[in-house]
Amino acid sequence: MEAVTSPLQESYGPITRGCQWLKALPNKFCDKTMEIARKTKKLGQDDPRRIVHSLKVGLAITLVSFFYYFEPLYDGFGDSAMWAVLTVVLVSEFSVGATLGKGLNRMLATLVAGALGAGAHCLASLSGRKGEPILVATFVFIIAVITTFMRFFPRVKARYDYGMMIFILTFCMVSVSGYRDDQVLKMAHVRFSTILVGSCASLIVCICVCPVWIGEDLHKSVAANIAKLANFLQAFGDEYFKVSEESNENNKPYLQGYRTVLTSKSSEETMQANFAIWEPGHGPFGYRHPWKMYLKVGNLTRECAYKVEALNSYLNSKIQAPAEIRGKIQVPCKRVSLECSRALKEMASTFRKMVITRSAVMHIENSKKAAEELKSLLKTSLWEEADLLEMIPAASVASLLLEIIGCIEKISEAVNELGKAASFRKINATVLPEQQDSIQQDSNNTAIVPVPHCVIVVAE
Amino acid sequence: MEAVTSPLQESYGPITRGCQWLKALPNKFCDKTMEIARKTKKLGQDDPRRIVHSLKVGLAITLVSFFYYFEPLYDGFGDSAMWAVLTVVLVSEFSVGATLGKGLNRMLATLVAGALGAGAHCLASLSGRKGEPILVATFVFIIAVITTFMRFFPRVKARYDYGMMIFILTFCMVSVSGYRDDQVLKMAHVRFSTILVGSCASLIVCICVCPVWIGEDLHKSVAANIAKLANFLQAFGDEYFKVSEESNENNKPYLQGYRTVLTSKSSEETMQANFAIWEPGHGPFGYRHPWKMYLKVGNLTRECAYKVEALNSYLNSKIQAPAEIRGKIQVPCKRVSLECSRALKEMASTFRKMVITRSAVMHIENSKKAAEELKSLLKTSLWEEADLLEMIPAASVASLLLEIIGCIEKISEAVNELGKAASFRKINATVLPEQQDSIQQDSNNTAIVPVPHCVIVVAE
Repeated sequence: MEAVTSPLQESYGPITRGCQWLKALPNKFCDKTMEIARKTKKLGQDDPRRIVHSLKVGLAITLVSFFYYFEPLYDGFGDSAMWAVLTVVLVSEFSVGATLGKGLNRMLATLVAGALGAGAHCLASLSGRKGEPILVATFVFIIAVITTFMRFFPRVKARYDYGMMIFILTFCMVSVSGYRDDQVLKMAHVRFSTILVGSCASLIVCICVCPVWIGEDLHKSVAANIAKLANFLQAFGDEYFKVSEESNENNKPYLQGYRTVLTSKSSEETMQANFAIWEPGHGPFGYRHPWKMYLKVGNLTRECAYKVEALNSYLNSKIQAPAEIRGKIQVPCKRVSLECSRALKEMASTFRKMVITRSAVMHIENSKKAAEELKSLLKTSLWEEADLLEMIPAASVASLLLEIIGCIEKISEAVNELGKAASFRKINATVLPEQQDSIQQDSNNTAIVPVPHCVIVVAE
Repeated sequence: MEAVTSPLQESYGPITRGCQWLKALPNKFCDKTMEIARKTKKLGQDDPRRIVHSLKVGLAITLVSFFYYFEPLYDGFGDSAMWAVLTVVLVSEFSVGATLGKGLNRMLATLVAGALGAGAHCLASLSGRKGEPILVATFVFIIAVITTFMRFFPRVKARYDYGMMIFILTFCMVSVSGYRDDQVLKMAHVRFSTILVGSCASLIVCICVCPVWIGEDLHKSVAANIAKLANFLQAFGDEYFKVSEESNENNKPYLQGYRTVLTSKSSEETMQANFAIWEPGHGPFGYRHPWKMYLKVGNLTRECAYKVEALNSYLNSKIQAPAEIRGKIQVPCKRVSLECSRALKEMASTFRKMVITRSAVMHIENSKKAAEELKSLLKTSLWEEADLLEMIPAASVASLLLEIIGCIEKISEAVNELGKAASFRKINATVLPEQQDSIQQDSNNTAIVPVPHCVIVVAE
């Protein structure tokens, strides 16, 4: 009996495991479904424009597909009406700028390539039925090689990459199909018209139904990046001078927000070069809005973020200056950090609202005064009994704070320059005249003029 | 007479200017042409693979267009043979990974969407001639909305964005055109076959003619980034301790090379997520090569680059420690910087060659010894007569150098981890056993073991 039961018992193992796996399957499936549902909900909540965009694309495609169903519309284009539907699918992008860029690229490239392709076909057909394929193949090869190489030019790649691809595509289509169908001109014409219809349909839906302006996104993102640095600096003073005991607790979100600024370069450049320049004037952003200057402000913000990153490394560094040494520079350091934060917040807030005020400059002045105080403190002989090695972290923090003031001044200048070029409104509301005078008079005094400041929350 | 000549004389102005402009036109045209020619030459010289790629695309398109010319090939597909040509244009990308990714996306999406579209048509046609458009339009709307929304999922966007677009496109095409043409199954089948032919043609050309492996580019780029930091650190010591007189001459290319590391995140992520994972094993990169770990090494390199950026700011800072103060810490600082540079160079070199050696670890040990020397120098009372404010920059530089050692250790660990996961060869050639022993014994001694090191130039 034993010999019979033992293999049976062995085979129970895999069967039981199989059963368990099968029993667990519905649960696993449920878990996976719930996870996807949760992610979907989060995606929609993070930016509800995504849901609207999906509905818009569905609407545009459905609208254009009616060309195919209705006799009078279908008669104009025939089977080629499908090109209009395909164009809508290919051209519909999230933002107006991207849709416009792609649509214009597609239309222009089709027009030029269609004409060139028809010309190539006519030229090639002169050489007879046998010579035609050879000539057309030569033309196609040359055009494909040149156009593909042109896509490597950075400027072409940024703006006309899609157009270049459509150019090769249409040229091949028109010139090659001329071999089987003599009506290439008609074909080129129909292709262009259907693409025109498709592009216009998706543009109309894109602009008329809750438009997403990428230029506005760029504007908000630059302001948000400045505000993120401000949030760090606001918290830094308190964190650094209390932290010693619980230094590994450095996961606070307001201290990590600035990290996305470090790597924001490519997204800003994409927004600017690829999309924002295609957008027509809208709302506060006029025609020829100086989008390029946003990159300058963005670059300076990143320069500042690198310094903030260095500052952050002292928060969770193993080598910490002893509390008594830090205590000595605590007051001016906190003040510099706080005034810098206020200056950045003011800048972010006024930049977002597209106004120019002097309040950020005032905070910079205040931080400079605090910096002088800090410097004179460092010069005094308070330190003589201290160990230099222990002092280095504290001294480095002080030195970084001084440098950050310089960075913020540069950002402020760039923002003002941009404000002038984009004709932001000038407002002196937050600064009373007598206050301004007193600041200028007291510029050598270390007392700090209290300025009301608002805490702003910038949506990402 | 005067009254007559004066308007004539006035009108000379614009005419003369017009003539001058016309005369200058050929020159301007020549200049522009020369500039474009120069840029073209530079693009080709910088990366000759670009020229090869252009020729490859031309070749693939021309090859596939023969489907259209030759009777026996044409008979199989008919006019749809054009889809094969279009597929080649759309799928051909610079690297094997990108081409493979796009090709697979296109094929899979066409297969699934073709089947679904045919199904939708069959279902809709049950409801009669009038109900069909309404049902199909509903299906199209629902599919378009869901698929467009799915493109927002970061994971889908990174890998399957193109496939999602082709999915909507094919679904619309097959289901909508079913209204005019009952042979949707045949149409879906032909569309899939032509796309298969086109994708395979471009893949074969892409892989067989001088293939460009993006994984290799990622590998080289990570190594090059490490080497760029090494180049900076190699030059830093000399620059910082001699610079005071000519501090504004900070445009030396070897000191600026590291700046591209700061913003390399997005390009590395694109290379990894979008393309490298699609590539089959090739050369030294086996199947399931740990591409994800490259991102970790890349991130640590960037962390180190942020510190190097902070170090660089002391090179052209207005506030400089006096030469005598800097002179005191010159020797150990230079040694730390040089040993760090050597460690990074060794790492870059061995990483590039896919070997594991202990030589980088030795240089790190050496730099740690120099760091101890630096620390003990900072502890001594050499400084008592000095002004603390003047010392801060020098102290900050020393502190940054100490931190950079930590960063480099982390990079070294990550590189070794990657080396193990990717089974790099282990070589102990550069380190003799007795040397290794002596290092371990002397770890508390400040003497530095001289290690031969090679200067490598990493191509970008």
